[in-house]
Amino acid sequence: MKSVLITGANRGLGLGMVKHLTKQNKAENIFATCRTPSDELKQLAQENKNLHILNLDLTNLNSFGDVVPKISQVMGDQGLNLLVNNAGISTKFTKLQLVKSEQLLENLTVNTVAPIMLTKALLPVLKQAADKHSDRPVGAERAAVINLSSILGSIEKNDQGGFYPYRCSKAALNAATKSMSLDLKKDRILVACIHPGWVKTDMGGKNAPLDVETSVQGMLDTILQLKEGDSGKFLQFDGTELPW
Amino acid sequence: MKSVLITGANRGLGLGMVKHLTKQNKAENIFATCRTPSDELKQLAQENKNLHILNLDLTNLNSFGDVVPKISQVMGDQGLNLLVNNAGISTKFTKLQLVKSEQLLENLTVNTVAPIMLTKALLPVLKQAADKHSDRPVGAERAAVINLSSILGSIEKNDQGGFYPYRCSKAALNAATKSMSLDLKKDRILVACIHPGWVKTDMGGKNAPLDVETSVQGMLDTILQLKEGDSGKFLQFDGTELPW
Repeated sequence: MKSVLITGANRGLGLGMVKHLTKQNKAENIFATCRTPSDELKQLAQENKNLHILNLDLTNLNSFGDVVPKISQVMGDQGLNLLVNNAGISTKFTKLQLVKSEQLLENLTVNTVAPIMLTKALLPVLKQAADKHSDRPVGAERAAVINLSSILGSIEKNDQGGFYPYRCSKAALNAATKSMSLDLKKDRILVACIHPGWVKTDMGGKNAPLDVETSVQGMLDTILQLKEGDSGKFLQFDGTELPW
Repeated sequence: MKSVLITGANRGLGLGMVKHLTKQNKAENIFATCRTPSDELKQLAQENKNLHILNLDLTNLNSFGDVVPKISQVMGDQGLNLLVNNAGISTKFTKLQLVKSEQLLENLTVNTVAPIMLTKALLPVLKQAADKHSDRPVGAERAAVINLSSILGSIEKNDQGGFYPYRCSKAALNAATKSMSLDLKKDRILVACIHPGWVKTDMGGKNAPLDVETSVQGMLDTILQLKEGDSGKFLQFDGTELPW
């Protein structure tokens, strides 16, 4: 890939993806967005001149257009090949009796509305990449949007209940992913959502069975193998398809 | 049923349900909620002394508890048998290029967050009904919550794209329905979501193939036949199960 943008890149899976991409030399340019870069991300950017840290606050829904000229400054007319909407939040487990409207609205804003609005804002550079690389098959090497979802957003797989803010926001993101895949088909932009597995991060906790490296390696392998017919799918990090 | 509460009862499907219930004499007490009652609803309440109009603004997410004492004033310790979360909004059809964050947040607030918070607020009277009518099987005659969803919230059935605010809000409501059905199982409260069909209402438009009466009759027949094993399902007005 010539370029990839990853949101929420200051820690957890986002930082893991950035690290993996710099190590494996899989992207010529990496745009890592976050509100406040961690020391680890800043250090990484010093060691890798192709890593560009961009300031982005996903709760500031009308600011996303600011990122476009910063990408074009580096990429010229090459556009953006891959957008990974990774950033997300999760409130603690709650049953119906305890859920608060603020938690619902906060999770829906960051996990659903922000990825939709960011994808909309980045359409010009995604389309540019799809056009510029028309010799490549539809996929992440040409132009793609990957939304980080969760198995907790699978309504079919829900046998535990609760978790309203997170589950609702991820089911809604899955719904948006399907619409995006249809809306952007004519532009040759692939769109899919992916479940990273249950990973040892601040969000996943230390009891999670997967380490960041395993999840990230799996997700990136899966993402890079996606073909036109995979657009609109809900996949696990290892490529297994999940039910809505 | 001894009691049913229907939101958004001033017009469309909500008013249709109220009319049907008063005509068929299927509920001893009907609570019809809305922000501003229509002349038709007010007229209906004058003719039917068992129809109680309650003021409820679904965008005022922290006001829902006010409804509980008003129900108890009429019902004593009999509680509420059936809550129909009918009220909803829909922004016009939009492709990704045109969607606005305000539309997303408005649809998610009214169509997803409000039904969750209203169900939470009404849990005391729903539990009361489930306990008081323990001689009845689990179902709408005992205690149930029905969320008005839409086939546009089915991710599987989406082959047109677009419609982000409405689709996301209904997919999220479906996710909430599944969690509610699991969380409230031990309380013997049934929860399901239902697609009314494409109906000639202000929302559905005049090209819709179904009239309000057909949809309402179908939905109420379906709702009244639901059994314990149907909790957590996504059904069409005619009882057909829909995929998530």
